[in-house]
Amino acid sequence: MWTATILTLFPELFPGPLDASVLGRARGQGLWALETVDIRAFSDNAYRSVDDTPAGGGPGMVMRADILAAALDSVALAGRPVLALSPRGTPFTQDRARALSAGPGLVAIAGRFEGIDQRLIEARGIEEISIGDFVLAGGEIAAMALVEACVRLIPKVLGSPSSAAEESFEQGLLEYPQYTRPKTFEGLEIPAVLTSGDHKKIAAWRREKAEETTRTRRPDLWKRYSENGPIRRGKNKDA
Amino acid sequence: MWTATILTLFPELFPGPLDASVLGRARGQGLWALETVDIRAFSDNAYRSVDDTPAGGGPGMVMRADILAAALDSVALAGRPVLALSPRGTPFTQDRARALSAGPGLVAIAGRFEGIDQRLIEARGIEEISIGDFVLAGGEIAAMALVEACVRLIPKVLGSPSSAAEESFEQGLLEYPQYTRPKTFEGLEIPAVLTSGDHKKIAAWRREKAEETTRTRRPDLWKRYSENGPIRRGKNKDA
Repeated sequence: MWTATILTLFPELFPGPLDASVLGRARGQGLWALETVDIRAFSDNAYRSVDDTPAGGGPGMVMRADILAAALDSVALAGRPVLALSPRGTPFTQDRARALSAGPGLVAIAGRFEGIDQRLIEARGIEEISIGDFVLAGGEIAAMALVEACVRLIPKVLGSPSSAAEESFEQGLLEYPQYTRPKTFEGLEIPAVLTSGDHKKIAAWRREKAEETTRTRRPDLWKRYSENGPIRRGKNKDA
Repeated sequence: MWTATILTLFPELFPGPLDASVLGRARGQGLWALETVDIRAFSDNAYRSVDDTPAGGGPGMVMRADILAAALDSVALAGRPVLALSPRGTPFTQDRARALSAGPGLVAIAGRFEGIDQRLIEARGIEEISIGDFVLAGGEIAAMALVEACVRLIPKVLGSPSSAAEESFEQGLLEYPQYTRPKTFEGLEIPAVLTSGDHKKIAAWRREKAEETTRTRRPDLWKRYSENGPIRRGKNKDA
Protein backbone atom coordinates (compact mmCIF):
# COMPACT_ATOMS: atom_id res chain seq x y z
CA MET A 1 0.00 0.00 0.00
CA TRP A 2 1.19 3.55 -0.81
CA THR A 3 2.65 4.84 2.47
CA ALA A 4 3.80 8.27 3.62
CA THR A 5 6.08 8.38 6.66
CA ILE A 6 6.62 11.83 8.20
CA LEU A 7 9.53 12.58 10.54
CA THR A 8 8.48 15.52 12.70
CA LEU A 9 8.72 17.20 16.09
CA PHE A 10 4.92 17.53 16.00
CA PRO A 11 3.47 14.08 15.23
CA GLU A 12 0.17 15.17 16.82
CA LEU A 13 -0.48 17.45 13.80
CA PHE A 14 -0.99 14.37 11.60
CA PRO A 15 -3.21 13.31 9.92
CA GLY A 16 -4.90 16.67 10.65
CA PRO A 17 -6.10 18.10 7.33
CA LEU A 18 -5.05 14.88 5.56
CA ASP A 19 -8.00 13.18 7.24
CA ALA A 20 -10.63 15.39 5.57
CA SER A 21 -12.89 14.51 2.67
CA VAL A 22 -11.61 12.24 -0.13
CA LEU A 23 -8.18 11.67 1.42
CA GLY A 24 -9.64 10.63 4.75
CA ARG A 25 -12.13 8.28 3.08
CA ALA A 26 -9.36 6.80 0.93
CA ARG A 27 -7.21 6.13 3.97
CA GLY A 28 -10.21 4.46 5.65
CA GLN A 29 -10.55 2.26 2.56
CA GLY A 30 -6.92 1.20 2.77
CA LEU A 31 -5.86 3.02 -0.42
CA TRP A 32 -2.94 4.68 1.36
CA ALA A 33 -1.34 4.77 4.80
CA LEU A 34 0.22 7.48 6.97
CA GLU A 35 2.87 7.00 9.65
CA THR A 36 4.70 9.53 11.80
CA VAL A 37 8.07 9.29 13.55
CA ASP A 38 8.61 11.56 16.56
CA ILE A 39 12.15 12.87 16.08
CA ARG A 40 12.39 13.81 19.77
CA ALA A 41 12.13 10.13 20.71
CA PHE A 42 15.66 9.81 19.27
CA SER A 43 17.19 12.61 21.32
CA ASP A 44 20.24 11.59 23.37
CA ASN A 45 19.62 13.90 26.31
CA ALA A 46 17.25 14.52 29.19
CA TYR A 47 15.94 17.76 27.63
CA ARG A 48 14.83 15.83 24.55
CA SER A 49 16.55 18.47 22.44
CA VAL A 50 17.35 17.65 18.81
CA ASP A 51 19.12 20.84 17.72
CA ASP A 52 22.25 22.84 18.39
CA THR A 53 23.75 26.20 17.38
CA PRO A 54 24.97 26.66 13.77
CA ALA A 55 28.65 25.98 13.15
CA GLY A 56 30.17 29.30 12.10
CA GLY A 57 27.57 31.32 14.00
CA GLY A 58 24.34 32.94 12.96
CA PRO A 59 20.79 33.05 14.24
CA GLY A 60 18.58 30.08 15.08
CA MET A 61 19.29 26.43 15.63
CA VAL A 62 20.15 23.52 13.32
CA MET A 63 18.73 19.99 13.53
CA ARG A 64 21.45 17.51 14.44
CA ALA A 65 22.57 14.93 11.88
CA ASP A 66 23.11 12.13 14.40
CA ILE A 67 19.63 12.37 15.96
CA LEU A 68 17.85 12.68 12.61
CA ALA A 69 19.91 9.74 11.31
CA ALA A 70 18.71 7.58 14.21
CA ALA A 71 15.09 8.63 13.53
CA LEU A 72 15.47 7.92 9.81
CA ASP A 73 17.17 4.57 10.38
CA SER A 74 14.13 3.44 12.38
CA VAL A 75 12.01 3.64 9.21
CA ALA A 76 11.69 0.74 6.76
CA LEU A 77 12.23 2.69 3.54
CA ALA A 78 11.02 -0.13 1.26
CA GLY A 79 12.29 1.66 -1.83
CA ARG A 80 10.68 4.97 -0.97
CA PRO A 81 12.55 8.25 -1.60
CA VAL A 82 13.51 10.36 1.42
CA LEU A 83 12.54 14.00 0.91
CA ALA A 84 13.35 16.92 3.20
CA LEU A 85 10.94 19.85 2.94
CA SER A 86 13.00 23.03 2.58
CA PRO A 87 12.81 26.31 0.69
CA ARG A 88 16.32 25.42 -0.56
CA GLY A 89 14.92 22.38 -2.35
CA THR A 90 14.08 21.72 -5.96
CA PRO A 91 10.51 22.79 -6.72
CA PHE A 92 7.78 20.20 -6.18
CA THR A 93 5.56 19.97 -9.26
CA GLN A 94 2.51 18.13 -10.53
CA ASP A 95 4.79 15.93 -12.67
CA ARG A 96 6.67 14.94 -9.54
CA ALA A 97 3.39 14.30 -7.68
CA ARG A 98 2.35 11.99 -10.51
CA ALA A 99 5.66 10.10 -10.40
CA LEU A 100 5.57 9.77 -6.61
CA SER A 101 1.93 8.62 -6.64
CA ALA A 102 2.89 5.77 -8.97
CA GLY A 103 5.61 4.53 -6.59
CA PRO A 104 5.52 2.88 -3.16
CA GLY A 105 5.14 6.15 -1.25
CA LEU A 106 7.54 8.60 0.36
CA VAL A 107 9.42 9.44 3.54
CA ALA A 108 9.37 13.15 4.40
CA ILE A 109 11.46 15.05 6.94
CA ALA A 110 9.54 18.06 8.24
CA GLY A 111 12.32 20.24 9.64
CA ARG A 112 11.98 23.09 12.11
CA PHE A 113 14.62 25.66 13.08
CA GLU A 114 17.15 27.02 10.57
CA GLY A 115 17.56 23.72 8.78
CA ILE A 116 19.09 20.26 8.89
CA ASP A 117 22.79 19.46 9.20
CA GLN A 118 23.96 19.14 5.61
CA ARG A 119 26.02 16.02 6.36
CA LEU A 120 22.86 13.99 6.98
CA ILE A 121 21.44 15.13 3.65
CA GLU A 122 24.60 14.03 1.84
CA ALA A 123 25.23 10.82 3.81
CA ARG A 124 21.72 9.51 3.27
CA GLY A 125 21.11 10.78 -0.28
CA ILE A 126 18.18 12.89 0.86
CA GLU A 127 16.52 15.14 -1.69
CA GLU A 128 15.58 18.62 -0.54
CA ILE A 129 12.24 19.62 -2.04
CA SER A 130 10.31 22.89 -1.87
CA ILE A 131 6.59 23.54 -2.24
CA GLY A 132 7.11 27.20 -3.14
CA ASP A 133 9.26 30.33 -2.92
CA PHE A 134 8.30 31.27 0.60
CA VAL A 135 9.48 30.30 4.09
CA LEU A 136 7.32 28.45 6.61
CA ALA A 137 7.81 28.03 10.36
CA GLY A 138 8.36 24.32 9.81
CA GLY A 139 8.02 21.58 7.26
CA GLU A 140 4.76 20.11 8.52
CA ILE A 141 2.30 22.05 6.36
CA ALA A 142 4.61 21.60 3.37
CA ALA A 143 4.69 17.84 4.02
CA MET A 144 0.89 17.82 4.12
CA ALA A 145 0.74 19.57 0.74
CA LEU A 146 3.24 17.10 -0.71
CA VAL A 147 1.27 14.10 0.54
CA GLU A 148 -2.12 15.49 -0.47
CA ALA A 149 -0.98 16.24 -4.03
CA CYS A 150 0.36 12.68 -4.39
CA VAL A 151 -2.46 10.77 -2.71
CA ARG A 152 -5.25 12.31 -4.79
CA LEU A 153 -3.54 10.87 -7.88
CA ILE A 154 -3.50 7.30 -6.53
CA PRO A 155 -6.00 5.22 -8.53
CA LYS A 156 -9.53 5.12 -7.00
CA VAL A 157 -8.87 7.99 -4.54
CA LEU A 158 -10.73 10.56 -6.66
CA GLY A 159 -14.22 9.56 -7.71
CA SER A 160 -13.72 10.33 -11.38
CA PRO A 161 -10.39 9.64 -13.10
CA SER A 162 -11.19 12.35 -15.67
CA SER A 163 -11.31 14.95 -12.88
CA ALA A 164 -7.53 14.99 -12.78
CA ALA A 165 -7.01 14.98 -16.54
CA GLU A 166 -8.37 18.46 -17.35
CA GLU A 167 -6.98 20.43 -14.44
CA SER A 168 -4.12 22.89 -14.16
CA PHE A 169 -0.65 21.71 -15.30
CA GLU A 170 -1.93 18.47 -16.81
CA GLN A 171 -1.50 19.87 -20.29
CA GLY A 172 1.07 22.49 -19.40
CA LEU A 173 -1.65 25.15 -19.00
CA LEU A 174 -3.58 26.67 -16.12
CA GLU A 175 -7.20 25.55 -16.06
CA TYR A 176 -9.97 27.47 -17.85
CA PRO A 177 -12.49 29.42 -15.74
CA GLN A 178 -15.51 27.55 -14.38
CA TYR A 179 -19.17 28.55 -14.12
CA THR A 180 -22.26 26.92 -12.67
CA ARG A 181 -25.86 27.74 -11.75
CA PRO A 182 -27.49 30.17 -11.13
CA LYS A 183 -27.64 31.38 -14.72
CA THR A 184 -27.46 35.02 -13.57
CA PHE A 185 -25.38 36.16 -10.62
CA GLU A 186 -25.53 39.86 -9.70
CA GLY A 187 -26.38 40.69 -13.30
CA LEU A 188 -23.55 38.55 -14.70
CA GLU A 189 -24.47 35.75 -17.11
CA ILE A 190 -22.72 32.46 -17.72
CA PRO A 191 -20.83 32.93 -21.06
CA ALA A 192 -23.31 31.98 -23.79
CA VAL A 193 -21.00 29.48 -25.46
CA LEU A 194 -21.07 27.26 -22.35
CA THR A 195 -24.86 26.91 -22.50
CA SER A 196 -24.92 26.46 -26.31
CA GLY A 197 -24.65 22.69 -26.21
CA ASP A 198 -21.99 22.90 -28.96
CA HIS A 199 -19.23 20.75 -27.49
CA LYS A 200 -16.68 21.62 -30.12
CA LYS A 201 -17.15 25.34 -29.55
CA ILE A 202 -17.04 24.83 -25.78
CA ALA A 203 -13.74 22.94 -26.03
CA ALA A 204 -12.27 25.67 -28.26
CA TRP A 205 -13.42 28.43 -25.89
CA ARG A 206 -11.98 26.65 -22.88
CA ARG A 207 -8.64 26.08 -24.61
CA GLU A 208 -8.51 29.76 -25.56
CA LYS A 209 -9.27 30.85 -21.99
CA ALA A 210 -6.71 28.41 -20.55
CA GLU A 211 -4.08 29.80 -22.91
CA GLU A 212 -5.03 33.40 -22.11
CA THR A 213 -4.87 32.79 -18.34
CA THR A 214 -1.51 31.03 -18.61
CA ARG A 215 -0.04 33.76 -20.83
CA THR A 216 -1.14 36.53 -18.46
CA ARG A 217 -0.35 34.93 -15.11
CA ARG A 218 2.50 32.58 -15.87
CA PRO A 219 4.81 33.73 -18.65
CA ASP A 220 7.21 30.94 -17.56
CA LEU A 221 4.67 28.16 -18.19
CA TRP A 222 3.45 29.90 -21.33
CA LYS A 223 6.95 29.97 -22.80
CA ARG A 224 7.38 26.23 -22.27
CA TYR A 225 3.92 25.50 -23.63
CA SER A 226 4.26 27.65 -26.72
CA GLU A 227 7.65 26.12 -27.50
CA ASN A 228 6.72 22.48 -26.86
CA GLY A 229 2.94 22.34 -27.32
CA PRO A 230 0.51 20.53 -25.02
CA ILE A 231 1.90 17.85 -22.75
CA ARG A 232 0.26 14.52 -23.52
CA ARG A 233 0.10 11.75 -21.00
CA GLY A 234 -0.94 8.18 -20.37
CA LYS A 235 -2.84 6.56 -23.23
CA ASN A 236 -2.37 9.61 -25.41
CA LYS A 237 1.35 9.66 -24.90
CA ASP A 238 2.25 8.51 -28.38
CA ALA A 239 -0.85 9.81 -30.11
CA MET B 1 -4.55 42.86 15.20
CA TRP B 2 -3.42 40.97 12.10
CA THR B 3 -6.33 38.64 11.28
CA ALA B 4 -6.74 35.75 8.86
CA THR B 5 -10.29 34.73 7.97
CA ILE B 6 -10.65 31.42 6.13
CA LEU B 7 -13.79 30.49 4.18
CA THR B 8 -13.94 26.71 4.05
CA LEU B 9 -16.16 23.64 3.99
CA PHE B 10 -13.96 22.19 6.75
CA PRO B 11 -13.68 24.79 9.53
CA GLU B 12 -12.80 22.00 11.98
CA LEU B 13 -9.37 21.70 10.31
CA PHE B 14 -8.38 25.11 11.71
CA PRO B 15 -6.22 26.13 13.50
CA GLY B 16 -4.79 22.58 13.20
CA PRO B 17 -1.10 22.90 12.33
CA LEU B 18 -1.33 26.70 12.72
CA ASP B 19 -1.62 26.13 16.47
CA ALA B 20 1.82 24.49 16.80
CA SER B 21 5.00 26.03 18.13
CA VAL B 22 5.76 29.72 17.51
CA LEU B 23 2.52 30.43 15.63
CA GLY B 24 0.36 28.93 18.36
CA ARG B 25 2.25 30.84 21.06
CA ALA B 26 1.95 34.07 19.08
CA ARG B 27 -1.80 33.61 18.71
CA GLY B 28 -2.03 33.00 22.45
CA GLN B 29 -0.16 36.28 22.98
CA GLY B 30 -2.62 38.17 20.80
CA LEU B 31 -0.11 38.84 18.00
CA TRP B 32 -2.52 37.55 15.38
CA ALA B 33 -6.04 36.12 15.13
CA LEU B 34 -7.67 33.36 13.10
CA GLU B 35 -11.34 33.11 12.14
CA THR B 36 -13.17 30.58 10.01
CA VAL B 37 -16.42 30.91 8.07
CA ASP B 38 -18.31 27.69 7.32
CA ILE B 39 -19.42 28.09 3.69
CA ARG B 40 -22.10 25.42 4.15
CA ALA B 41 -23.90 27.64 6.65
CA PHE B 42 -24.77 29.84 3.64
CA SER B 43 -26.28 27.05 1.54
CA ASP B 44 -29.84 27.69 0.36
CA ASN B 45 -31.03 24.11 0.48
CA ALA B 46 -31.80 21.28 2.86
CA TYR B 47 -28.84 19.23 1.63
CA ARG B 48 -26.47 22.05 2.60
CA SER B 49 -24.90 21.71 -0.84
CA VAL B 50 -22.77 24.61 -2.12
CA ASP B 51 -21.81 23.31 -5.57
CA ASP B 52 -23.37 22.42 -8.91
CA THR B 53 -22.28 20.87 -12.22
CA PRO B 54 -19.98 22.90 -14.51
CA ALA B 55 -21.70 24.96 -17.21
CA GLY B 56 -20.61 23.49 -20.54
CA GLY B 57 -20.04 20.03 -19.06
CA GLY B 58 -16.96 18.31 -17.73
CA PRO B 59 -16.02 16.37 -14.64
CA GLY B 60 -16.45 17.47 -11.04
CA MET B 61 -18.48 20.22 -9.42
CA VAL B 62 -18.09 23.99 -9.19
CA MET B 63 -18.64 26.14 -6.10
CA ARG B 64 -21.63 28.44 -6.56
CA ALA B 65 -21.06 32.20 -6.83
CA ASP B 66 -24.24 33.15 -4.93
CA ILE B 67 -23.50 30.97 -1.88
CA LEU B 68 -19.85 31.99 -1.68
CA ALA B 69 -20.89 35.64 -2.08
CA ALA B 70 -23.21 35.32 0.92
CA ALA B 71 -20.39 33.71 2.95
CA LEU B 72 -17.94 36.42 1.90
CA ASP B 73 -20.39 39.24 2.58
CA SER B 74 -20.69 38.00 6.19
CA VAL B 75 -17.01 38.92 6.75
CA ALA B 76 -15.88 42.40 7.83
CA LEU B 77 -13.02 42.84 5.35
CA ALA B 78 -11.51 45.87 7.13
CA GLY B 79 -9.21 46.60 4.19
CA ARG B 80 -7.94 43.04 3.89
CA PRO B 81 -7.39 41.48 0.45
CA VAL B 82 -9.57 38.51 -0.52
CA LEU B 83 -7.46 35.66 -1.91
CA ALA B 84 -8.72 32.42 -3.42
CA LEU B 85 -6.28 29.51 -3.24
CA SER B 86 -6.07 27.95 -6.68
CA PRO B 87 -3.42 26.37 -8.90
CA ARG B 88 -4.62 28.90 -11.52
CA GLY B 89 -3.47 31.77 -9.35
CA THR B 90 -0.42 33.98 -9.45
CA PRO B 91 2.44 32.41 -7.48
CA PHE B 92 2.64 33.21 -3.78
CA THR B 93 6.16 34.35 -2.88
CA GLN B 94 8.20 35.50 0.11
CA ASP B 95 7.90 39.10 -1.12
CA ARG B 96 4.13 38.75 -1.07
CA ALA B 97 4.23 37.16 2.40
CA ARG B 98 6.24 40.16 3.60
CA ALA B 99 3.77 42.63 2.09
CA LEU B 100 0.76 40.77 3.51
CA SER B 101 2.36 40.49 6.96
CA ALA B 102 2.74 44.28 7.06
CA GLY B 103 -0.98 44.81 6.34
CA PRO B 104 -4.13 44.19 8.38
CA GLY B 105 -4.37 40.48 7.49
CA LEU B 106 -6.10 38.50 4.77
CA VAL B 107 -9.31 36.71 3.83
CA ALA B 108 -8.74 33.36 2.09
CA ILE B 109 -11.23 31.20 0.23
CA ALA B 110 -10.23 27.54 0.48
CA GLY B 111 -12.11 26.00 -2.45
CA ARG B 112 -12.89 22.35 -2.98
CA PHE B 113 -14.22 20.69 -6.15
CA GLU B 114 -13.19 21.85 -9.64
CA GLY B 115 -13.09 25.51 -8.68
CA ILE B 116 -15.14 28.61 -7.95
CA ASP B 117 -17.63 30.26 -10.30
CA GLN B 118 -15.56 32.86 -12.15
CA ARG B 119 -18.27 35.51 -11.81
CA LEU B 120 -17.72 35.70 -8.05
CA ILE B 121 -14.00 36.19 -8.60
CA GLU B 122 -14.64 39.06 -11.01
CA ALA B 123 -17.56 40.66 -9.15
CA ARG B 124 -15.68 40.82 -5.83
CA GLY B 125 -12.19 41.58 -7.17
CA ILE B 126 -10.81 38.38 -5.69
CA GLU B 127 -7.20 37.50 -6.42
CA GLU B 128 -6.46 33.88 -7.24
CA ILE B 129 -3.18 32.85 -5.65
CA SER B 130 -1.20 29.62 -5.89
CA ILE B 131 1.29 28.10 -3.46
CA GLY B 132 2.90 25.94 -6.17
CA ASP B 133 2.62 24.11 -9.46
CA PHE B 134 0.68 21.14 -8.15
CA VAL B 135 -2.96 20.35 -7.47
CA LEU B 136 -4.39 19.69 -4.01
CA ALA B 137 -7.71 18.13 -3.00
CA GLY B 138 -8.79 21.48 -1.57
CA GLY B 139 -7.50 24.87 -0.59
CA GLU B 140 -7.22 24.26 3.16
CA ILE B 141 -3.57 23.14 3.34
CA ALA B 142 -2.64 25.88 0.86
CA ALA B 143 -4.41 28.45 3.05
CA MET B 144 -2.45 27.16 6.05
CA ALA B 145 0.82 27.61 4.16
CA LEU B 146 -0.19 31.14 3.13
CA VAL B 147 -1.09 32.12 6.69
CA GLU B 148 1.99 30.50 8.26
CA ALA B 149 4.38 32.24 5.85
CA CYS B 150 2.79 35.62 6.65
CA VAL B 151 2.37 35.25 10.40
CA ARG B 152 5.98 34.30 11.10
CA LEU B 153 7.00 37.66 9.60
CA ILE B 154 4.77 39.68 11.95
CA PRO B 155 7.00 41.56 14.41
CA LYS B 156 7.66 39.66 17.68
CA VAL B 157 6.34 36.32 16.35
CA LEU B 158 9.81 34.88 15.73
CA GLY B 159 12.16 35.10 18.67
CA SER B 160 15.02 36.66 16.74
CA PRO B 161 14.36 39.20 13.97
CA SER B 162 17.68 38.28 12.36
CA SER B 163 16.41 34.70 11.89
CA ALA B 164 14.32 35.85 8.95
CA ALA B 165 16.97 38.10 7.40
CA GLU B 166 19.46 35.44 6.30
CA GLU B 167 17.10 32.77 5.05
CA SER B 168 16.16 31.64 1.55
CA PHE B 169 14.79 34.31 -0.85
CA GLU B 170 15.59 37.23 1.46
CA GLN B 171 18.56 38.19 -0.72
CA GLY B 172 17.33 36.52 -3.87
CA LEU B 173 19.34 33.37 -3.10
CA LEU B 174 18.62 29.99 -1.54
CA GLU B 175 20.14 29.64 1.91
CA TYR B 176 23.65 28.25 2.47
CA PRO B 177 24.00 24.77 4.01
CA GLN B 178 23.96 24.47 7.80
CA TYR B 179 26.06 22.35 10.17
CA THR B 180 26.06 21.80 13.90
CA ARG B 181 27.56 19.48 16.53
CA PRO B 182 28.73 16.74 16.65
CA LYS B 183 32.01 17.70 14.98
CA THR B 184 32.19 14.34 13.22
CA PHE B 185 29.13 12.52 11.88
CA GLU B 186 29.69 9.13 10.25
CA GLY B 187 33.23 10.19 9.35
CA LEU B 188 32.09 13.52 7.89
CA GLU B 189 33.56 16.69 9.40
CA ILE B 190 32.03 20.14 9.66
CA PRO B 191 33.76 22.23 6.92
CA ALA B 192 36.93 23.64 8.52
CA VAL B 193 36.16 27.24 7.59
CA LEU B 194 33.07 27.21 9.82
CA THR B 195 35.10 26.32 12.91
CA SER B 196 37.97 28.72 12.02
CA GLY B 197 36.49 31.68 13.91
CA ASP B 198 37.29 33.89 10.90
CA HIS B 199 33.96 35.65 10.38
CA LYS B 200 34.92 37.27 7.11
CA LYS B 201 35.94 33.92 5.61
CA ILE B 202 32.77 32.29 6.97
CA ALA B 203 30.58 34.96 5.36
CA ALA B 204 32.41 34.57 2.03
CA TRP B 205 32.10 30.76 2.15
CA ARG B 206 28.39 30.96 2.92
CA ARG B 207 27.78 33.44 0.12
CA GLU B 208 29.63 31.16 -2.30
CA LYS B 209 27.59 28.12 -1.21
CA ALA B 210 24.32 30.05 -1.41
CA GLU B 211 25.20 31.13 -4.95
CA GLU B 212 26.25 27.61 -5.93
CA THR B 213 23.03 26.07 -4.58
CA THR B 214 20.87 28.66 -6.31
CA ARG B 215 22.71 28.25 -9.62
CA THR B 216 22.34 24.47 -9.55
CA ARG B 217 18.80 24.12 -8.27
CA ARG B 218 17.08 27.28 -9.43
CA PRO B 219 18.38 28.68 -12.70
CA ASP B 220 15.35 31.01 -12.71
CA LEU B 221 16.30 32.66 -9.40
CA TRP B 222 19.96 32.64 -10.37
CA LYS B 223 19.25 34.53 -13.58
CA ARG B 224 17.39 37.26 -11.69
CA TYR B 225 20.07 37.44 -9.01
CA SER B 226 23.00 37.59 -11.41
CA GLU B 227 21.26 40.30 -13.44
CA ASN B 228 20.12 42.46 -10.53
CA GLY B 229 22.45 41.59 -7.65
CA PRO B 230 21.34 40.92 -4.08
CA ILE B 231 17.95 42.18 -2.98
CA ARG B 232 18.34 44.69 -0.14
CA ARG B 233 15.56 45.37 2.25
CA GLY B 234 14.43 47.48 5.20
CA LYS B 235 17.09 49.74 6.65
CA ASN B 236 19.62 48.67 4.04
CA LYS B 237 17.27 49.52 1.20
CA ASP B 238 19.17 52.55 0.02
CA ALA B 239 22.60 51.48 1.26
